[in-house]
Amino acid sequence: MTEISPLEKINSNFKNKDILSLDQFSPSDLKKLFTLTKKMKTIAVNAKPSDILKGTITILLFFEPSSRTFGSFSAAIQQLGGSVIAFQGMGNSSAAKGETLEDTIRVFEGYSDAIVIRHSEVGTAQKAANAATLVPIINAGDGIGEHPTQGLLDMATIYEKHGRLDNLTGVFAGDLLNGRTLHSTIRGLSLFKNNTLYLLSPKQLQLSREHYNEFTQRGLKLIEITNEKDIPANADFWYWTRVQKERFKSLADYEKVKNKFIVTKKLMKERAGKETIIMHPLPRVGEIESDVDDDRRAVYLRNQIRNGMYVRMALLALILGKA
Amino acid sequence: MTEISPLEKINSNFKNKDILSLDQFSPSDLKKLFTLTKKMKTIAVNAKPSDILKGTITILLFFEPSSRTFGSFSAAIQQLGGSVIAFQGMGNSSAAKGETLEDTIRVFEGYSDAIVIRHSEVGTAQKAANAATLVPIINAGDGIGEHPTQGLLDMATIYEKHGRLDNLTGVFAGDLLNGRTLHSTIRGLSLFKNNTLYLLSPKQLQLSREHYNEFTQRGLKLIEITNEKDIPANADFWYWTRVQKERFKSLADYEKVKNKFIVTKKLMKERAGKETIIMHPLPRVGEIESDVDDDRRAVYLRNQIRNGMYVRMALLALILGKA
Amino acid sequence: MTEISPLEKINSNFKNKDILSLDQFSPSDLKKLFTLTKKMKTIAVNAKPSDILKGTITILLFFEPSSRTFGSFSAAIQQLGGSVIAFQGMGNSSAAKGETLEDTIRVFEGYSDAIVIRHSEVGTAQKAANAATLVPIINAGDGIGEHPTQGLLDMATIYEKHGRLDNLTGVFAGDLLNGRTLHSTIRGLSLFKNNTLYLLSPKQLQLSREHYNEFTQRGLKLIEITNEKDIPANADFWYWTRVQKERFKSLADYEKVKNKFIVTKKLMKERAGKETIIMHPLPRVGEIESDVDDDRRAVYLRNQIRNGMYVRMALLALILGKA
Repeated sequence: MTEISPLEKINSNFKNKDILSLDQFSPSDLKKLFTLTKKMKTIAVNAKPSDILKGTITILLFFEPSSRTFGSFSAAIQQLGGSVIAFQGMGNSSAAKGETLEDTIRVFEGYSDAIVIRHSEVGTAQKAANAATLVPIINAGDGIGEHPTQGLLDMATIYEKHGRLDNLTGVFAGDLLNGRTLHSTIRGLSLFKNNTLYLLSPKQLQLSREHYNEFTQRGLKLIEITNEKDIPANADFWYWTRVQKERFKSLADYEKVKNKFIVTKKLMKERAGKETIIMHPLPRVGEIESDVDDDRRAVYLRNQIRNGMYVRMALLALILGKA
Repeated sequence: MTEISPLEKINSNFKNKDILSLDQFSPSDLKKLFTLTKKMKTIAVNAKPSDILKGTITILLFFEPSSRTFGSFSAAIQQLGGSVIAFQGMGNSSAAKGETLEDTIRVFEGYSDAIVIRHSEVGTAQKAANAATLVPIINAGDGIGEHPTQGLLDMATIYEKHGRLDNLTGVFAGDLLNGRTLHSTIRGLSLFKNNTLYLLSPKQLQLSREHYNEFTQRGLKLIEITNEKDIPANADFWYWTRVQKERFKSLADYEKVKNKFIVTKKLMKERAGKETIIMHPLPRVGEIESDVDDDRRAVYLRNQIRNGMYVRMALLALILGKA
Repeated sequence: MTEISPLEKINSNFKNKDILSLDQFSPSDLKKLFTLTKKMKTIAVNAKPSDILKGTITILLFFEPSSRTFGSFSAAIQQLGGSVIAFQGMGNSSAAKGETLEDTIRVFEGYSDAIVIRHSEVGTAQKAANAATLVPIINAGDGIGEHPTQGLLDMATIYEKHGRLDNLTGVFAGDLLNGRTLHSTIRGLSLFKNNTLYLLSPKQLQLSREHYNEFTQRGLKLIEITNEKDIPANADFWYWTRVQKERFKSLADYEKVKNKFIVTKKLMKERAGKETIIMHPLPRVGEIESDVDDDRRAVYLRNQIRNGMYVRMALLALILGKA
């Protein structure tokens, strides 16, 4: 019944904007955001208490469990002196009594300055944004839909390393069909010029044709490969995700491909360059071997995590008009 | 085994008082509370960080899930710079190991300045108050017992609109037999003079005779009606609640009444006045049609929610001696 | 696979140290800690807002439910103006998606200044400490392993009462085989000279020979008794725990002993001295009768609880370098 509004562009004014998709951002919006992200890093690293968000309340409305995203938002808000009201596993409350999402949002906006929402169904964040009349809504992942702040942290990490978001060569590997975070990140890279992405996956888990066409039309150069031997030398980044056994029709199909989608020291020696950063949205379950962790190019347990917090600090400060 | 203490009256001194029932308040207590509520609104609306409750810790001890009341208390405390320790779904912890409620309270009062308790059993808040030796207990709903802060927010909303709590004509509709919030609110209105309440419900869900007699003896004029055509013109407020199908012995009985207990635009046109506010404790499940939401007289998704936070801010500031 | 590191001693420098076991502390470390604990009591009692931990974030990573320890850490951190990110019942999140504990810790240390961990498996806190590269880990109980902050609060309580931690005579009663908190406390007392401990338990629930030998070699004098008549007069403290029926092979065995392991007014009159304090780690389920609660020597619902908060305040301030 709810009419879906067209995405509102940031247009260099973040204040009170809903954050639903990476498609809302222009390159200059991202530049503004990542410049502030760098300042936020300084605040966090110096551990000087900040009162930038003091007096604001952000509600974390998580209908589906999450530890990483939940922790990252909680930390970002509190790093800046803001308050958090946390709901994890909302299934057992008003929603269970039959309340509509719209009513829940209308209630919670009465208590808060912003609402961060996580839900298992695509489009829920948009639905929440349509219902809200007072406060901005931030999408923290809606099913296989988008997860814009994950995309932003990935881009912030690439930007931090290479100083640019155009003229990049990257590799996305694993389950390109179902990976939500990866779709947000590719979408973000499609905003910039001259980016070439190698897409390494088994045939069954290739990017959907819909996504492929959309991203290609935006100017991304996409090269689909099925063998790790075709990974280009000296890529700027590798972005790895998990290939789940249960996605395959036969065990034989899975056995054929499984070793091609694991980052090992050997693979890095053969195909990665000195400046190739190794990324992963986490959690990982074996698709990057643990002896890769100590390699200085491995950023998944370091910069990506920290940048997630910094970029959310910057985003909240901008949206709440406190930057 | 625990002896039930008689309710301690506020007597214009809120400090360290348990808040268990609306019967503790005199009209002058309420005037004091609602005057402060108005000031709290100013603090919240101006979004100037307040440190009124800084250095205090309030424990939210919720044995039964709640999102609205939990969120409202969390927000109220943090709006004033206070700290919250939240327990939602306490069933899986010490209580599960067989600890008595009394011991749980004695432990938690060692960590806090106040305890807000929600439980599915009538009398639990009173039991907690009897056990506590150091900190005040606030009842956030005990089964079909009382929910005093809901009553207070309802009264604050009527007072905000009409500037008085006496000489009112109101309508309470729906399930008058089982509605906890509504009992607290009627109890509150019984403290004031010349109030006339129309009680609209199917016979099966009328106010219990016990409640009817108690409230009548206090001076309330109660008029029981079973048809929406008997709603008086220009009432000061309508207070709607849900009629649950499962309360009826036969489906036929339910079918006969169901349309009489839904607020529609049409019903409002026929029976509501220009200054009649439409209230609901929420969550609603269809008993007020959603196209009523935008009517400026509909306060359930607006003033009631916000006033809930303001009145809890005021109450906590008074109880903790920080007003 | 993870190599277990030897315990790092505090050596009077708490900053950034993991807290895994009481064996890390020397008597002078404890003196330093308990001196600060006393100052923390002043801060908490005066209810003057403190900003000692302002700008720091501590993650409470509770894989197993807990209300007392969780509440005590939450209160301690917030008493000092620090921020908390709380995870209760972590089972349903990244861990459930197959993430290793090591990865979870690496992620969370990116968001925080310290991690407090509770888990049902022995050795988990040590495993977490091995994984962490940035922040200190505090063991809040790992299965039947250790629970060092409980040991510390017990010792702080004895120290507060008697002004010393040597030359003590104490009684430990109940389930000495499985009681985690009690093992930490005995371990702590083994650091000091001339302590004599009477161990009252049914044969089946005696201290393990391994523990017995270890503690004896450290110089503790341990006297095992099976009858409450052998409790020494005028002990400095009694430390009671629960004897669970289900630990016994036959009901007859249980029936024989059950009344010997309950603190009653009568038993206190017969065997306790004027200065004997009665301790219990809680929750209790009947093993201290409730009419003992009001006895001024009963500290389990009073000093032990409050000291738990004070000692955790002191410990966190020291570890985070803010004391």
